[in-house]
Amino acid sequence: MQNENIVISLDAMGGDNAPHSVVHGANLVAKEIPDIKFIFFGNEDKVKPLILKSKFLNKNNYTLVDTKEYVENSDKPAEAIRKKTSSMRLAINSVKEKKAHACVSSGNTGALMVLSKLILKALDGVHRPAIATVIPTVKSGCLCLDLGANVTCDEESLLQFAIMGGAYLTSLDENIKKPVVKLLNIGSEELKGNELIKNTSNLMAQTESINYQGYVEPDQIFDHAADIVVTDGFTGNIFLKSIEGTAKFLTNSFKKTIKQSLLAKIGIIFMIVPGLKLKKTIDPKVHNGAILLGLNGISVKSHGSANASSFYYAILKAYRLAKGDVINKIKTSL
Amino acid sequence: MQNENIVISLDAMGGDNAPHSVVHGANLVAKEIPDIKFIFFGNEDKVKPLILKSKFLNKNNYTLVDTKEYVENSDKPAEAIRKKTSSMRLAINSVKEKKAHACVSSGNTGALMVLSKLILKALDGVHRPAIATVIPTVKSGCLCLDLGANVTCDEESLLQFAIMGGAYLTSLDENIKKPVVKLLNIGSEELKGNELIKNTSNLMAQTESINYQGYVEPDQIFDHAADIVVTDGFTGNIFLKSIEGTAKFLTNSFKKTIKQSLLAKIGIIFMIVPGLKLKKTIDPKVHNGAILLGLNGISVKSHGSANASSFYYAILKAYRLAKGDVINKIKTSL
Repeated sequence: MQNENIVISLDAMGGDNAPHSVVHGANLVAKEIPDIKFIFFGNEDKVKPLILKSKFLNKNNYTLVDTKEYVENSDKPAEAIRKKTSSMRLAINSVKEKKAHACVSSGNTGALMVLSKLILKALDGVHRPAIATVIPTVKSGCLCLDLGANVTCDEESLLQFAIMGGAYLTSLDENIKKPVVKLLNIGSEELKGNELIKNTSNLMAQTESINYQGYVEPDQIFDHAADIVVTDGFTGNIFLKSIEGTAKFLTNSFKKTIKQSLLAKIGIIFMIVPGLKLKKTIDPKVHNGAILLGLNGISVKSHGSANASSFYYAILKAYRLAKGDVINKIKTSL
Repeated sequence: MQNENIVISLDAMGGDNAPHSVVHGANLVAKEIPDIKFIFFGNEDKVKPLILKSKFLNKNNYTLVDTKEYVENSDKPAEAIRKKTSSMRLAINSVKEKKAHACVSSGNTGALMVLSKLILKALDGVHRPAIATVIPTVKSGCLCLDLGANVTCDEESLLQFAIMGGAYLTSLDENIKKPVVKLLNIGSEELKGNELIKNTSNLMAQTESINYQGYVEPDQIFDHAADIVVTDGFTGNIFLKSIEGTAKFLTNSFKKTIKQSLLAKIGIIFMIVPGLKLKKTIDPKVHNGAILLGLNGISVKSHGSANASSFYYAILKAYRLAKGDVINKIKTSL
C-alpha cells in the first residue's frame, strides 16, 4: 500500500448493475481524483473489457483480481461466508491485509455486514458496530445510526454511536468541531419515549465529549435539527425504510401522472433543467454509501440498485473517510 | 339522538385553521349527505357568523353550543383536563351522553387522546386503545395502528389491534371480508425482529379470526402489501412521522425549485390539471382522521393544520364509522 495514494477495493460483481456501475463509477472518480488507486475483484472476462474502455482507468491506477465466485443477492449470510473466494470477501480481505484503505460493494447487504464484521472485527472497546448513513436535509445531510445492525441496543452502545458519528463527521470535514447530537424519539418533551431512550438521554447529557441536545422526531431531521441522530437498529431501520418507501411512492405516482397526461408531458419539458437542480439537492444518490462504524477497517455499502453515478458517490465516501483517517479518529475518541 | 340521522359533534375551536376549517368542512359534508346533523361547540361570536354564511347549514341540520373555553395547542393534557367546559371536552361528552354518534377535533392531539380515554373509556376487555389511521397506498390505503397511543405494547394488545382494525374496515365497507393483517418489522424473514414481534407473530398465526400473513417492511406498505398493519405505538409513531417528514421535505423542495426557476413556472402551468389528479390519489388529506380504537365511542382526530376540505374528510370518516356501527363491530369481534 503506497502512502501517497488512497487504495480502494471494489467488489465488481455486487449489485443490480454490476459490473458496469462499478467500473464506470470508478472511472468517474478517477477522472476527478489523481491520488486514488483501485483494486477490482471480479470476473476478468466481464470486468476487463469495461475497464479497457474506461478513459481514466489505466495500469497506473488499477489492478484487477480475477475471481469467478460471488455472493448472490439471495444468499443467506451463512452461504456467503462459505464462499471463500467471492469478490465481496476478497475485497474486504484486502482491507484487513492493509492492501487497501477501504472497500466498496453494492452487493447483498446482510452478507456484507456479516463478512465485514467477521473479517475486519470490531475495534477494541466497541460494544457493537452500527450502520451509519446520511439522510438528506435542507442543509446537506444528517448522519443517522444505527440503521439496522443491532435490533436491540443498550445505553452504552447508543452513546458509542454518538461518539463514533462525531469521529465520522470530523474525518470528512475538519471544520466540524462540535456536531449536534440528538436521540430519535416520538416527541421532543423530556417525558416522551421508552426507558432505554430516557436513560440514554441522561447518559448523553452527562457526557462532555459530545454536544448532546435532546430528542428529535423523524420529521424534524429533514429541517436539519441535528448533525448526528442516534437510534437503535430496529427504530433506525423502520425510519430509513419509511423514508425510502415514501420517496419512491411519491416519485412513482408523479411519474405515472406524467405518463398519463399529454399536458403534463409538455409541462415536464420545461422542468428538466430546474428538475435536475432539484435532483442534485435532494437525490439520495448523493449520499449513497452506508458504513459499518466501529470496525477495524472501512467497508462501505452502496445501494443495491446503484448505477455508475450513484456508485461514484459511494467510492467518494470511502475515499474521503480513508483520507480523513476515520478509524484512528474513532479509536482516539472512544 | 334521532335514529334516522347521524349526529356528529364538532370541536369548532381546535386546530390551526379553526373555526373556519370546521364550519366550512361541515358545510361541504352537509352538501353531500342529507342524513347528517352537527353539534358545533365553540365561541358563538366567532362560529355563528361563519355558519350563517354557509349555504348547506340550516336550523334543521345543526345546533351550536356556546363555550368560551378551549384547549390550546400548548396545553399539557393535565391542563386540558382542568378545562371543564372546553369545546373539545364538551364535544367528547356529547358522545358519551349519546347526544352524538361521534366527535371530530383538529385540536391538541395529546389532550384529545387523554380526554377521549377519560370520558369515553375503554371497551370491556380492551387492554389498550390504539391510534389508527390510513396510510395512502397504490390501492387506496392501508389501516395502520397503533400510531402513538402506547409506547410499549404486549402480544395480547397487538393481537387486539389487529382484531379492532378488522372491525374498523368492515364497518366502512361490508364487502371487506378477510382483510390481510401484517406486523410491521425490519425484514420479511421469520427470524427478523425483536422478541415481542416474533412472539406476536406466533400468536397471530394461531388466531383464526384474523387473516394474518406475516411481516411487512415500511416501504412495502405503499405497494399495499396489507390491508391492516399492526405495530406498537413507538414504532408506529416513528413510521408515521418519517412518512410525513419525507413527504413535506420533498414537496417543499419541489415548490422551492419552481419558485426559483422561470422555466419551471411555465412548466407547472401545464401540470395543474394532471397535478390535481395526482393530488387526489396520494394526498394524505383524503385519509385525514385518526381514531382512538377500543373506546366506547368514536372520537376522530383531524390533522392540526387541516383546512376545510381536509376537515371534510375527517367528518366523513366519523360519519361512515358511526353509520357502519364500528363500536358494536369491535365489541362483537373481541
